[in-house]
Amino acid sequence: MFALTILGCNSAIAAYGRNPTAQALQVLDETFLIDCGEGTQMQLARYKVKWSKISRIFISHLHGDHYFGLPGLLSTMGLLGRSQDLHLYAPPELEDILQMQLDVTSATLPYPFYFHPITKPGVICNTQHIQVNTFPVVHGIPCWGFTFKEIRNPRRIISERVKAYEVPSDFYSELQHGKDFVNAKGTIIPNNELTDAAPRPRTYAYCADTIYNEAMIPYIQHADLLYHETTYPAEQAELAAKRFHSTTNQAANIAQLSKAKKLIIGHFSSRYEKLDIFLKEASAIFPDTELAMEGTCYAL
Amino acid sequence: MFALTILGCNSAIAAYGRNPTAQALQVLDETFLIDCGEGTQMQLARYKVKWSKISRIFISHLHGDHYFGLPGLLSTMGLLGRSQDLHLYAPPELEDILQMQLDVTSATLPYPFYFHPITKPGVICNTQHIQVNTFPVVHGIPCWGFTFKEIRNPRRIISERVKAYEVPSDFYSELQHGKDFVNAKGTIIPNNELTDAAPRPRTYAYCADTIYNEAMIPYIQHADLLYHETTYPAEQAELAAKRFHSTTNQAANIAQLSKAKKLIIGHFSSRYEKLDIFLKEASAIFPDTELAMEGTCYAL
Repeated sequence: MFALTILGCNSAIAAYGRNPTAQALQVLDETFLIDCGEGTQMQLARYKVKWSKISRIFISHLHGDHYFGLPGLLSTMGLLGRSQDLHLYAPPELEDILQMQLDVTSATLPYPFYFHPITKPGVICNTQHIQVNTFPVVHGIPCWGFTFKEIRNPRRIISERVKAYEVPSDFYSELQHGKDFVNAKGTIIPNNELTDAAPRPRTYAYCADTIYNEAMIPYIQHADLLYHETTYPAEQAELAAKRFHSTTNQAANIAQLSKAKKLIIGHFSSRYEKLDIFLKEASAIFPDTELAMEGTCYAL
Repeated sequence: MFALTILGCNSAIAAYGRNPTAQALQVLDETFLIDCGEGTQMQLARYKVKWSKISRIFISHLHGDHYFGLPGLLSTMGLLGRSQDLHLYAPPELEDILQMQLDVTSATLPYPFYFHPITKPGVICNTQHIQVNTFPVVHGIPCWGFTFKEIRNPRRIISERVKAYEVPSDFYSELQHGKDFVNAKGTIIPNNELTDAAPRPRTYAYCADTIYNEAMIPYIQHADLLYHETTYPAEQAELAAKRFHSTTNQAANIAQLSKAKKLIIGHFSSRYEKLDIFLKEASAIFPDTELAMEGTCYAL
């Protein structure tokens, strides 16, 4: 399981039933929440994303439509009896905002909570299965994109072969790292008899809110799934730049230049009830494009 | 027009499509927003309450389910081009929380915004048509109830009579205050020939989150519409008291003792999918009770 569920796909003003930005990335039995606009807790319930599986939350920047749902979510997690750790990765100023909101009610979160300020590009977190990197994007205030890259054992064990050659299971880790097996009789079984090369690790890249910015390509290249904002259609390029946002054409260009496998676009302006134009314009440049529709789950 | 629209009727955890507390009280062409739980801006849009008419917002206390929707609402009002004044009445600490959230984006609200800290009971605002009083309720943290009382001219002019007696319009105000009219010939036309006694001013009383507390009765008596929370059914009286909340029976008792005309109950615990028991229990004591259902508009 490596799949992304869209919880909110609109820009700052919720409209036509579309909510501000939030996404849930499920990797095996762990869920990463990416941004948390107002109403995210309701959207998690609506789309049946299990709260207890959310272990880490990543906030790209401190415009309200990307974090105003966070105080409510953290508070409700407490009311629901959460006891497991929660890690939050966000611009440093968010820590004081959350603390002040707790202070006015003399409350503390009733579960272990770890705040990790984002201050520079690079690896911000390694879990058993995923490495998360952050990179700067260009918006009106400090803003960070994220890549979620699968960590895979270098080689994959072929189960019928290891059985046939009677390889003990405590040798599996060495096999995965390329070592040959020597059996009880001293016969060498070459590693490639027992293992296959592992498939290429999959990557999800989230470009947050940004102007058109080719400088981020080194961070996101070859993503299996790329999310890039398209607040406006192509004809609004001037307005997009002025407001530190991107158009359909720009998102599609970034997808093409970064050699993404698939592009999803979102953060739609509330000016547009119908989204056909967004899909049409982006697909014309980068054919494997989809609209980031709420409730849709994109498997990598 | 003196009518209350329910925007959120659940307690802290949104559930079964029910949202945290928010209510919109429309008085002629002005709307007062009472509490502002997460998602209130979406609820305003859903139930077609005009944002531009919201002139004053009242926050009872700083538990998140009563104000986490406020930063988003204030911000969206700015994005929608609001230019008219907005007044906020709330516990003093809210001012710093809002300011900090603006500061991190180096933003200011692009419309005149006035913060009025609530620190003691009494009149907190007088508009042309309404006087708002606040009174303390008993909750885990400082918490305030509100009454919205119509201001009416003492007497109502009978239009066909003032025409018949040729009373000049600049004398209407004196007529409304009980004065007799003397015409050009010196004839005295008694005031009660020209006016009727005005109907009794209507009052809406909002009791916020509170334990059972008869001390608030002097503030709310004879309300045309009384809102009292019923987080729990009657059998949970102990839990209700422990969490500074009320039960159905307690809300109905307060309605009876305060001689309310009609009671609406809300702030339902997320434990309860069906709300029949709330209505059944409260109505058994105070028959004119209704559930505060979202989207329903109660005319006074």
